Amino acid sequence: MPKYKITIEYDGTNYVGWQKQSNGSSIQEGIEKALYLLTGVNTSIFGAGRTDAGVHALGQVAHFELEKDFKIDNIRDGLNQHLRPSLIAILKVELVSDTFHSRFSAKKRTYIYKIVNRRAPLTTDKSKKWLVFKKLNINKMIKESKFFLGKNDLNAFRSINCQSNTSIKTIDSIEIISNKDDLMITVIAKSFLHSQVRIMVGTLVEIGKGKIKFSIQNIINQGERSKAGITAPACGLYLLRVEY
Amino acid sequence: MPKYKITIEYDGTNYVGWQKQSNGSSIQEGIEKALYLLTGVNTSIFGAGRTDAGVHALGQVAHFELEKDFKIDNIRDGLNQHLRPSLIAILKVELVSDTFHSRFSAKKRTYIYKIVNRRAPLTTDKSKKWLVFKKLNINKMIKESKFFLGKNDLNAFRSINCQSNTSIKTIDSIEIISNKDDLMITVIAKSFLHSQVRIMVGTLVEIGKGKIKFSIQNIINQGERSKAGITAPACGLYLLRVEY
Repeated sequence: MPKYKITIEYDGTNYVGWQKQSNGSSIQEGIEKALYLLTGVNTSIFGAGRTDAGVHALGQVAHFELEKDFKIDNIRDGLNQHLRPSLIAILKVELVSDTFHSRFSAKKRTYIYKIVNRRAPLTTDKSKKWLVFKKLNINKMIKESKFFLGKNDLNAFRSINCQSNTSIKTIDSIEIISNKDDLMITVIAKSFLHSQVRIMVGTLVEIGKGKIKFSIQNIINQGERSKAGITAPACGLYLLRVEY
Repeated sequence: MPKYKITIEYDGTNYVGWQKQSNGSSIQEGIEKALYLLTGVNTSIFGAGRTDAGVHALGQVAHFELEKDFKIDNIRDGLNQHLRPSLIAILKVELVSDTFHSRFSAKKRTYIYKIVNRRAPLTTDKSKKWLVFKKLNINKMIKESKFFLGKNDLNAFRSINCQSNTSIKTIDSIEIISNKDDLMITVIAKSFLHSQVRIMVGTLVEIGKGKIKFSIQNIINQGERSKAGITAPACGLYLLRVEY
């Protein structure tokens, strides 16, 4: 059976997240419905990462198998047709080998987190960025962010609901770019713990506010969730890219 | 009476435009209501430019006079408080001299127009950019855009409803920047005709599609609205900045 890889963009605001759940609409369910309308066959799709409610994606990846051969352009346009008017779009469809798995074959995942640091409320960026009122010390945030680099036990930076066996993770890159009131934090790693990026961002912001006075290194060493900062809101987070 | 200059950001999607109208909510009306709630006095505000329904602003400017002195930070925070939950935000308040006029003192206005050139529908950028399906010839658009520079009779590039006495306008700068599927067109001039930027963009896009084969120079010379392209949708247009 031919196997397809799809690259997906979505506005997560009104979804319960990527994964199917009983309490509302999920992205996965939306795409599976569109796939059924297109092919007439119930088909399960497998995502590279489970984004939470309100989290967006500019390059989520999923795979599925179909019994029949479809032209990849027809899958893209057909799914997009059936997905209307939901805020889910299929950017790209590729034929992949049997061994490809969106989740297990992934080598790098890139998340970005968008912050606006100002007093005025958001307008055009509402539910697309996190609005932080208090003036942030960006240089301090950049300096502290470097302690995340490399292999560390990030137990302090995972949700208490995280089900991963290990909290040891390797962060390949973390970059903070500021432009006027805008702040963008980019984090690259092979994989992440539950809510990891949001807790990392929440902690960096509280350091930038002067509210947390510990160093990131210190919080990593102590390994307690309570020592890290708040979980930053979902609306600022985007799964940008998955590399294979 | 102290005179204040305010810098305003708004999402124009659900408004009839800047100016007060009988058929729906306007930005001007929203701010005047907030000003009344803050000061207890009915106060008129004067905007630097009348953005149409659906057009956004990242740096619209207006002025008004108050009988009493207010602290500028209190005006900003107070107006923003009363403007909630509308998508209008006061970014900055400044005390200006008696002679300042948001519209007549303006030396330069900068508009940006955002396009996404791809097959897939928009998600996170819905009603914030113009989605153009057909692959655009960007180099041709850039080359043609240069004919707009300088002083020209732009009669072909104004709405049939435009009430300006003259259609002679000077464009100081036009820049087209493309980044993957994203395209941003920036136009700077002292002042603009009604729908001018949207007709300029609509024409450049039809040239990029190969649908219009005339040169911009040719269309300027002929001076007929029917020779120019469509009026690009409001949702891609932003009043970025007004300089004094």
